[in-house]
Amino acid sequence: MEKTCTPGIPDSAFIRGDVPMTKEEIRVLSVCKLHLDANSVVYDIGSGTGSVAVEIARLSPNIAVYAVEVADEGISLINQNAANFGCKNIHVVQSLAPAGLEDLPAPTHAFIGGTKGNLKEILAALRVKNPKIRIVGTAVTLETVAEMQNALKNLSVSDVDIVQVSVSRAEKVGSYHILKANNSVFIYSFTLSEAE
Amino acid sequence: MEKTCTPGIPDSAFIRGDVPMTKEEIRVLSVCKLHLDANSVVYDIGSGTGSVAVEIARLSPNIAVYAVEVADEGISLINQNAANFGCKNIHVVQSLAPAGLEDLPAPTHAFIGGTKGNLKEILAALRVKNPKIRIVGTAVTLETVAEMQNALKNLSVSDVDIVQVSVSRAEKVGSYHILKANNSVFIYSFTLSEAE
Repeated sequence: MEKTCTPGIPDSAFIRGDVPMTKEEIRVLSVCKLHLDANSVVYDIGSGTGSVAVEIARLSPNIAVYAVEVADEGISLINQNAANFGCKNIHVVQSLAPAGLEDLPAPTHAFIGGTKGNLKEILAALRVKNPKIRIVGTAVTLETVAEMQNALKNLSVSDVDIVQVSVSRAEKVGSYHILKANNSVFIYSFTLSEAE
Repeated sequence: MEKTCTPGIPDSAFIRGDVPMTKEEIRVLSVCKLHLDANSVVYDIGSGTGSVAVEIARLSPNIAVYAVEVADEGISLINQNAANFGCKNIHVVQSLAPAGLEDLPAPTHAFIGGTKGNLKEILAALRVKNPKIRIVGTAVTLETVAEMQNALKNLSVSDVDIVQVSVSRAEKVGSYHILKANNSVFIYSFTLSEAE
């Protein structure tokens, strides 16, 4: 795929297997809401297929992405997608976060796409690594919405932005187009502040 | 505002007056669906406040943006927002498109945020300037959806992507948050192909 200077790779360009993947529009909005700069150090936690890691890594060769994923299939997909897009700045870490984060360089930003119920522990670990980190997390289930709300109550944060995004995509059926709804997703974005 | 390497400036950072503005999430998705590169020449047609022009111009100093707008208030806002964000690569053109496009450099990309009912004529003019141009247009009204559908029937296009995006934003009310719905917007993205 041709190199562009923004995120926005179509979903079909990624190798997906059976692993759930954050869809194009949610991926684009999540990456942009991180407010990355050309030297960011980013954790992609629950990296899945690595699609978010790839979008971020392609923004600048000086960005470092640590794709943290526990499942074997995910690790294999991340490696394949990173290789397909020529992303040498993606570092794959097989671990169930927050385990495995201790030894990594301090992040400036983190995207949380999956937590396996460890959101609170992951946020605590991120705060130890960088008490001013910018975090974006998606919630597809109402249980994750509840986890996020509970976590935010106990954190000192700024630049909070919470949106629910519902996308329907026109799909061709014969010579007609129908609108096919994707699952609605909540995107939580916030920056940790030091006062706590 | 700090410089980031993606679009995603909050709405509140723009001077708006009474001119309607494409909201953050729609702006971000529209810019990313253009698939810009660092040397793109972009028309922003119906530029309004210039918010899309600013997002694009900040991606690279080598990008040239032509912000085309007919209203005096819009022209003033585009100039103010371009100056506030230090975008020297935004060229303001006061005209009712497609008038005013003849003398501009050929575009690689166009964003159509407003047409004043001239969509068909604008698309025809863009095709003359560049028969392989990438175009993204938003439709807030069902009349514009109809115009887009009619226009697409008569154009030879590739990489067509049509999505309806509905965003609700959490707003603080006392110590609670309520979800406030933005208007749902259709985003049309396509690339003209030469066969016609």
